[in-house]
Amino acid sequence: MIAPGATIGILGGGQLGRMTALAAARLGYACHVFAPEADSPAFAVARHTCASWADRAALADFAAAVAVVTLEFENVPVDVLDFLAGRVQVRPNAAVLAVTQDRLAEKRFLESRGFPVAPFREVRSPEEAASALVELGGRGVLKTTRFGYDGRGQRIVASPEEAVAAFAALGPGTKVLEVFVTFEREISVVTARRADGTRASFPAVENRHEHHILRTTIAPAPIPPALAQEAVALAEGVAEALGVVGLLAAEMFVTGEGRLLVNELAPRPHNSGHWTIDACPVSQFEQLVRAVCDLPLGDPTPFAAAVMENLLGDEVAAWPRLLAEPGARLHLYGKREVRPGRKMGHVTRLFPTLDGIKR
Amino acid sequence: MIAPGATIGILGGGQLGRMTALAAARLGYACHVFAPEADSPAFAVARHTCASWADRAALADFAAAVAVVTLEFENVPVDVLDFLAGRVQVRPNAAVLAVTQDRLAEKRFLESRGFPVAPFREVRSPEEAASALVELGGRGVLKTTRFGYDGRGQRIVASPEEAVAAFAALGPGTKVLEVFVTFEREISVVTARRADGTRASFPAVENRHEHHILRTTIAPAPIPPALAQEAVALAEGVAEALGVVGLLAAEMFVTGEGRLLVNELAPRPHNSGHWTIDACPVSQFEQLVRAVCDLPLGDPTPFAAAVMENLLGDEVAAWPRLLAEPGARLHLYGKREVRPGRKMGHVTRLFPTLDGIKR
Repeated sequence: MIAPGATIGILGGGQLGRMTALAAARLGYACHVFAPEADSPAFAVARHTCASWADRAALADFAAAVAVVTLEFENVPVDVLDFLAGRVQVRPNAAVLAVTQDRLAEKRFLESRGFPVAPFREVRSPEEAASALVELGGRGVLKTTRFGYDGRGQRIVASPEEAVAAFAALGPGTKVLEVFVTFEREISVVTARRADGTRASFPAVENRHEHHILRTTIAPAPIPPALAQEAVALAEGVAEALGVVGLLAAEMFVTGEGRLLVNELAPRPHNSGHWTIDACPVSQFEQLVRAVCDLPLGDPTPFAAAVMENLLGDEVAAWPRLLAEPGARLHLYGKREVRPGRKMGHVTRLFPTLDGIKR
Repeated sequence: MIAPGATIGILGGGQLGRMTALAAARLGYACHVFAPEADSPAFAVARHTCASWADRAALADFAAAVAVVTLEFENVPVDVLDFLAGRVQVRPNAAVLAVTQDRLAEKRFLESRGFPVAPFREVRSPEEAASALVELGGRGVLKTTRFGYDGRGQRIVASPEEAVAAFAALGPGTKVLEVFVTFEREISVVTARRADGTRASFPAVENRHEHHILRTTIAPAPIPPALAQEAVALAEGVAEALGVVGLLAAEMFVTGEGRLLVNELAPRPHNSGHWTIDACPVSQFEQLVRAVCDLPLGDPTPFAAAVMENLLGDEVAAWPRLLAEPGARLHLYGKREVRPGRKMGHVTRLFPTLDGIKR
């Protein structure tokens, strides 16, 4: 057990790292953030090292200063994780990241372990993209294998010609072609897992996207209880199979037939878990701290229903109105530069549930 | 209005400053803490200056780095506040602190404005202490005028001889002798006030002390609604009369006859307001940030009843059990050194109210 008072290392300095550091501070931990970007929002609330991922001396000093390392950004180079792992516990570890950093590896892993995923093909050339599209039924999503988020690195394709063009447009390298899934809704589950296998999951939530960026999370998801339970079991099963220590966010589609398909995994705090700060006894960020420090996991049962809205780009200008709205919980990330679609903050509104307050 | 993104200066680096900085970060502010003690808990979560109150150069640099100054420690020397006020807005201001730093000035102020206080006398010698005790009915509390907290700097006296001895024991200087009040309970109200006079108060809570140190806060206080309203009106009236910008915590006695007497004022976040972090849409710390930045004050209506217990000295060793208790909200302050009676953290437990969740 890593006791309060220790220093937790966080790789990545965005809002997820910032909120992790705030949750850690509440439990009496110090944090040390490592990130390459000078304007990292997490730097303001913790000790920090601003250095490149290639800076081995800086990484060695960082490792020496912390009791455990976790991350808020899943594209930390695996060799960095390996380097750190020689010096300090890294949670989640490089093996988890190697899978979740690569769409193809992730889908193959899920498929091989029997988790439901939409049919997909590895495609290494425009021609393979075109023929795979025909095989998969004529409508698909072509994706790069790495560094995709918020809709970057993917194209919907509905003809072999489009598949060929999209392959070129997405740049060099192997890609994944997935069947285009007509879904009823998108949901996600954030689950926490300790090294001893103990786990605790927040309930499934519904996510609504605009232009591929999360706009709204509705917690809990308005789906039948059995399906919600199935989603939680699925996320916990994947976390177990991957051996995640920390958090795993599993995004899923609910198909028109009421089936679940795993869409994407993130082994870190997730935008769709921000509502937990205001509506649960323990937030996803505190749960991450508990998991990586081998503390008892907290009670994830919400005491309220919640709707979380992201504040994207200049929507953040609404802050004076949101601060004046009774009961609205405003969170701003301290980012100086406003860019279109950039996640600047979020607001959570609570609604009564039948459960009321749980002790 | 001081917009998110700005830097808030905080005088004092204890747990109150730490929790203020965490609340400020949530709203996108940066904080800069100024405190003389190298091991200040707030330093870990904000930029900071560790320097003596006498270091004018450090104070000038601090003033230049922040958009507004507030405080978590009411014994900041008034000349420091005056020095800063020539450079940056200080909220609350030196005039408020001059009153609340001095028990005699505070009681005279309250009495002169018609607020209910227990009878008291200024005493400048052992002889005056003895004769004042007789005048006040034979049982009293002799207190230093300055730097008293958690029971330090005060003695209960029940005879002229005890009064004489206590005067000497409390060291040099003028003292206050107060009637010993037999109270039914101790309550407090934390109220927030903006420069334009807008205010918002958390409900009255009951405080239970052990050895003069706060042990438990029960929110709301189990008193009749009319009395609770009277307590809030009293706190708001005092905040208005003093011209506080920020927070005012007013501690009061409820006498056996159901009357209120103001006991002590603190123009800063207060231990009896910690429960608001977990049970209200806005905490006392966020409310302080809102007040000093001229933001709309938040909704202080609790969505749950709460009991807050301080973790004093080695009671903090209970943290593993508290972390494992479902629904218990643990807060640790990151203090390295455990000393008897030292406030190391607190735990808040919530209970259902009829109100449920308010939007």
